[in-house]
This record gives sequence, structure tokens and C-alpha cells, in this order.
Amino acid sequence: MKAEIIAVGSEMLTPHRQDTNSLYLTDKLNALGVTVAFKTIVGDRRKDIVGAIRTALGRADILVMMGGLGPTEDDLTREAVAEALGLGLRREPAQVAALHARAATWRITMPENNLKQADVIESATVLPNANGSAPGQWLDTAFEGYRKLVMLVPGPPHECRALFDTECVPRLKEVLPPRFIAVRTLKAAMIPESQADKLLAPIYTEYKDVETTILAHTGDIQLTLLCAKATQEAADARVEELAGKLEEALDDWLYSSDGESLEQIVLYYLGLRQATLATAESCTGGLVAERITRVPGSSRSFLGGAVVYSDPLKTAFAGVPPEMIAKHGAVSAEVAAALADGIRKRTGATLGLGVTGIAGPTGGTEEKPVGLVYFAVADGQTTDSYDRTFRGDRERVRQWASQQALDLIRKKLM
Amino acid sequence: MKAEIIAVGSEMLTPHRQDTNSLYLTDKLNALGVTVAFKTIVGDRRKDIVGAIRTALGRADILVMMGGLGPTEDDLTREAVAEALGLGLRREPAQVAALHARAATWRITMPENNLKQADVIESATVLPNANGSAPGQWLDTAFEGYRKLVMLVPGPPHECRALFDTECVPRLKEVLPPRFIAVRTLKAAMIPESQADKLLAPIYTEYKDVETTILAHTGDIQLTLLCAKATQEAADARVEELAGKLEEALDDWLYSSDGESLEQIVLYYLGLRQATLATAESCTGGLVAERITRVPGSSRSFLGGAVVYSDPLKTAFAGVPPEMIAKHGAVSAEVAAALADGIRKRTGATLGLGVTGIAGPTGGTEEKPVGLVYFAVADGQTTDSYDRTFRGDRERVRQWASQQALDLIRKKLM
Repeated sequence: MKAEIIAVGSEMLTPHRQDTNSLYLTDKLNALGVTVAFKTIVGDRRKDIVGAIRTALGRADILVMMGGLGPTEDDLTREAVAEALGLGLRREPAQVAALHARAATWRITMPENNLKQADVIESATVLPNANGSAPGQWLDTAFEGYRKLVMLVPGPPHECRALFDTECVPRLKEVLPPRFIAVRTLKAAMIPESQADKLLAPIYTEYKDVETTILAHTGDIQLTLLCAKATQEAADARVEELAGKLEEALDDWLYSSDGESLEQIVLYYLGLRQATLATAESCTGGLVAERITRVPGSSRSFLGGAVVYSDPLKTAFAGVPPEMIAKHGAVSAEVAAALADGIRKRTGATLGLGVTGIAGPTGGTEEKPVGLVYFAVADGQTTDSYDRTFRGDRERVRQWASQQALDLIRKKLM
Repeated sequence: MKAEIIAVGSEMLTPHRQDTNSLYLTDKLNALGVTVAFKTIVGDRRKDIVGAIRTALGRADILVMMGGLGPTEDDLTREAVAEALGLGLRREPAQVAALHARAATWRITMPENNLKQADVIESATVLPNANGSAPGQWLDTAFEGYRKLVMLVPGPPHECRALFDTECVPRLKEVLPPRFIAVRTLKAAMIPESQADKLLAPIYTEYKDVETTILAHTGDIQLTLLCAKATQEAADARVEELAGKLEEALDDWLYSSDGESLEQIVLYYLGLRQATLATAESCTGGLVAERITRVPGSSRSFLGGAVVYSDPLKTAFAGVPPEMIAKHGAVSAEVAAALADGIRKRTGATLGLGVTGIAGPTGGTEEKPVGLVYFAVADGQTTDSYDRTFRGDRERVRQWASQQALDLIRKKLM
């Protein structure tokens, strides 16, 4: 079954705003075995909307109309769908009453044009909207002799998504052939880009019945495996089999078999080892600490740390000897190690992290170019050091460095 | 003039990837006086692409085709545009030579199917692509008796945007009536949402000839004023006049009259006052430091700071007396003030910032709910304190708190 999603709203044709609901709806439709074949964005002009609907009904079996259900003159989706299908609109008394009741709870007099929201297309089912005043509509209808399912859902994301989940998905399930889905998400850190596909493609391309999606960004890859079968057991078995092979190939690049973030995994291992962590960051400017503290409950294992941007702070907060900085430079393996061990001692943490590098765009030399970052992880027994030169702008170097730092902590704890 | 943008690529019909080029292209087209009336996303199926092109040519004057220009079997845009327009394709010898030359510099033998990229639609102009192997194409043609401008641009963002700027914009300018544009971006921080529109709408709605766009997120609003006139002077004058009135209304909520970020403005004022800054953050976990250090050259005014997530670190790094924490709690006005003044003294900075609060989702009490954050800014003479309760999840509370913190530093320096 092929679907088209039409987002209605002139604001989504400006440089400033983008439809994001359609990604959510696509995910839900895919899980039901429906492919999204087209997405269209159209402004608040009735003629344009009617034309877009007719085009969609000519090329798709399922049409999701998003937005344009509000009370203003610009909200034209109801009228446009009715016109495109050659159906009438009726004002539904139960909806009129619901709108009045809603206005009463807000202690406001309902403006006359609000009543537009009670207009229902002939033969449509009203879909209640728990989060807003405009209900959705569901039509099991025909266009040029073919059966078409048409859904009208509101535009605001929380209304759209909740209504689609509670009202549209169950109705689609009734109509569509049954499907059992298994999904797994694997994640790996810092795998060289040139290696990932060479390593993984020969494995997952053997599993034609499992849809494998790979997303990569700044040192992180995410593989989503999705399989649909006639029984849950069959779907699970195929995904598990493929996941097992991919996990083996990814070896210790793999950090999550179930979709957790790298920060969550680091905190999980810290908890498991009853260990605590403190950080001393120069070029990442607090990004490592900020990422870790995004996770609720991180205070159980993360003590805090220092952003040692200036050289005197490297000494004041992590006890790096000024002579060491003078001799080797603030960006050096020695200083990274001293930061890691120093912050560990100062804070009493089990593990200390040190990061120092040149984020750019200036400050690089031939010997120490922009993008060079030194890392160290200290546990009081040993201090592991690492350095790497990242490509890209300041923002990318910092992102890569924070990913590398978290991954080094993970490996230390594994 | 009405334009349609068609993005070609099955990956943009998955839940994982979204077209973003179209926002950039819309901005450029708007500046030329062209309205984007439709956007369509279509997968790599020739029949679907041809259909989408015919629909677009039936409803728009300008068609931008994005993506599907590569060398693989899935790259079908050239063939589809030729078919939709009823034109032939020719293999262009100069392009064949360019592809061979490109392969030679990479020291690879060119695969045969790469030559697809040398196929040019009859009557099309080849648009050189400085960043990739697939050139763009430009057609000034006709469809069902109407003149149509059709552009083929590559999909990868840096290729698409550069080629559109250097090849398409100048050609569009030649064809379209001349327009002179003035643009200004104003930014304001922490203005209450209920106030912003009440304050600003009566002003900007008086300027029907200036297009005012307002974007708001977590304590930041951005107003973009755009005016097109027959002369540059006339456009500038209208934008300046409106900007002046809006700036007056925004008063000290306004932090930028020229689009700078709040971090840049804070660093600008620090430089101007020859002052330095250090931060002691608890609930924001390093986010304030991380935001400041995103700006190149921030090391001139930002010394660094501490992420004092655990109570002992509040004492160790900012000298907060343990008795004070015991008496008032780690989340209190007293501790915020002690963090600000303590980090200032420890680092020798001119200004110290202290932030402590409850980011959630747990840890709140009736007296101190989730979202409550205390701030202090100390300069050795006075310590300004502030507290506020933010709504939303952990991520939003942290974002709001970092915005508030930066804004308090800005106000201290003004």
C-alpha cells in the first residue's frame, strides 16, 4: 500500500519552518507495512490544496492530510477534501456542543468562526482530539473507482501525533493485512567511516527480508533492523540472527544493542563498577560534562569537573604544573594525562578524564594542527593516553572530541 | 512568480532523513521575489518522478529539481525531466572529458556508469558543480504553451547550495524583474511569551510592505525584517524605520540588532569592559561554558569554570561552606551567590557566575519544585541574585537556565 502525506500551511513554505510530523507518521505507517511514496507541502490556498489532493488520490491508496483544521479563514483542509472528493460538509451538532463546552471551561465566549471546526465531511468519522479543539476525520471512500483511505489530522505536533496514534493507527490495522514487526537498534562509536560499510554491508545485504537503516554522524553509527513477518516469532528470529552477526563484526566498537545513548552506557558501566567520574576539559569547553548530565540520575556517578580553558585554571583546578605547560605546551599528551590524574585526585573520583586540543579555527601550527586533541583517562593505577586529529570546523572538532572522550571512558570501564 | 521544489530520493521518504536544502533555496528564491508554492518529495521511481514533474509544471513557473543526479541506477532525474518535457538526452563530450579528468586526479579508473552524469537534456545549459562530479542543468523551456524555468541541482547540501548560489541565482536575476532587498535581524532574550506578540504586533503590522518573521525558542526570539523595493535606499529606509521602533519597544530585552548570538554578545561586552568570566554550574552541567566556548576566540575573555555537580565539589572548586549547603540546601539563593563569588575568587576572573537548580525529572519538593533554578553574578563589589521556575522536561529546563544565565551576565555588563 502506498501513502502520501500532504502538509497544509503557508508557514511551511517559508525558509523558517519545516514539517517534522511527517517523519513520525512515516515511522508509524512503515510499521503497518505502508510505504510513503510522496510528501507534498502546500500553502493555505484552496485551489492549490484541492489540486494537491486530486494529484495524491491519483497516485496513492492512503492520504494523510495534516494541518489546516483550525478555526481561521486560512484553515481550508475540510473544504478542500470535500471538494476534491465531490462530497458535502455538514455541521455536526455533537461537535458544536463540544466546542461550546470547551469554551465554557476556558470561561470564554466562543467566536462564531470557531464553529467551522464542527464541519464534517459527508460519510466521514469524527476523530476526537484530546489535545486541541479541532477534531480529526477518517474517510473510507473512493476516487475514480478506487478505494482510498483519507485521514485529516491537526498540524500542531503533539495533537497530530497523539491523534494519529490513538485514532488512525487502530483503524488502519483493521483495514490492512496483519503484520508482525521486530525492531532492534545497534549503536557503535568511533568506527572509521571507510570501515563501517565494508564490514557491515556483506552481512546485512544477505538478509533481504530485514530492512537495515544506517545513520552516521560524528563518530556515532546507528543501525536499525526491521523485519515484518506473518508471526512475531519469525520476525524476532530473523532480527536476532542478523543482530548477532552484526554485533560480532562490530566487536568492541559496539556500545549498545538496544538503542541507549553513549552517555547512558558510560553511566551504566560507572554504576556497575561502583565508580565515579570527574572531567577536566579544555577544548571541549564543558561539552563532555554537559552530555553526561543530560541523563537523568547522572549525579549518582558523575561528580562534576572543571572547564580549564585558561592555563592558570589547568593548574588551579587540576594541579597541572606550570613548568609542564611551559615545556610541552597546553595541548600535549603530558598535560592531558596531568589533567586526568589531577582532576581525579582533586575530586576523589574513581576515574578522571583530561581533554586538551585545538578546536580552531585558529591556533594551529604545522606540528600541532587545528583538530589535534589529546585525551587521557586515569584511574590512579594507570593513565591511558590517546590523541587524534579530527577534520572539520570548530563545532565538528568539539563534537568528535566529546564522542571520543566518552568512548575512551567506556572502554576503560568495559 | 510561483516556484515548486521537488526533492528526489527514497531516503527522504523514510522516518530518518529530511530534506533541509529546500529551506535554503526558499530563502534565496524569496529574496528574488519568487514564492515557493509547493514542495514535493518523491522516491527513486522514474514513473513517480515524471508524474511529479508534470504536476509541478502544471502549477508553477519555476521548478527546482533537487537530487537524483549521481551515477547510480537510482539516479533518474535527468531521464525523468527529459521525458516529462518530451525532450531528448545527449551525452556531452566536454562533460565526458571532465569526468575522466576528475577520475584521473583521484587516480581511479572511471566506472562506465559514471558517464550517465554527462547526459544533458536537449536545449539545457550545463551548470558546473565545483564540489562534486554531477553537474547541474538549466532549462528555459515551455510546457503546454507556457514558459517554464527548470533547474536540476545536486542533492548533497554543500553541492546544492553552492551551485544554486553561483549558477542559478545569477540566471534567475537576469530573467526576473529587478528587486532591491533590505534585511535586518533583531534578537531578544527572556521576553515573556505572552508579552512579545502583544508588544510587537501593533508595530510591525503597520508596515505591510515589510515582511516580519518571528521565531521563538527557549528564551530567545528572533525577528527578521525583509523589505523589497524598486531602489536599495527605499528598502533600507523602511527596514531601518521599523527596526528602530521595534528596538525601542524591546528595550533591554534586545541584545542584538544584527543577528549575533547571545554568546557572541556576552563575549563582545566582556572584551569591551576588558573583563573576564568564570562559571560554576550545577544543574546546567557545563552547558553555559559549552555555549560560550562555541565562539571562536572565546578564550580571550572566558577563563573556564567548574561543573560542581556533587556537593563536595561546590566546596572544593568554589569554596562554598559545607554548613551553608547543610542549612539552605544545595539548591538555594545562598549557594548560588557563594558559587558565583567563590569561582570568581578562585579563578581571578572579573565576573563569576553561579547556577544551581533542579533540572528534573525527579528531585523536586513542594517548596523547591522541578524547574526551580537560582542564579548569581558576582563582580567583587556586588552579587546579583535571581531565581526562576522553568516549565518543561530536563532538556528544556537546562536550555532555559543557560539562556537566563547568559542574559544575566549580559545585563551585568551593559
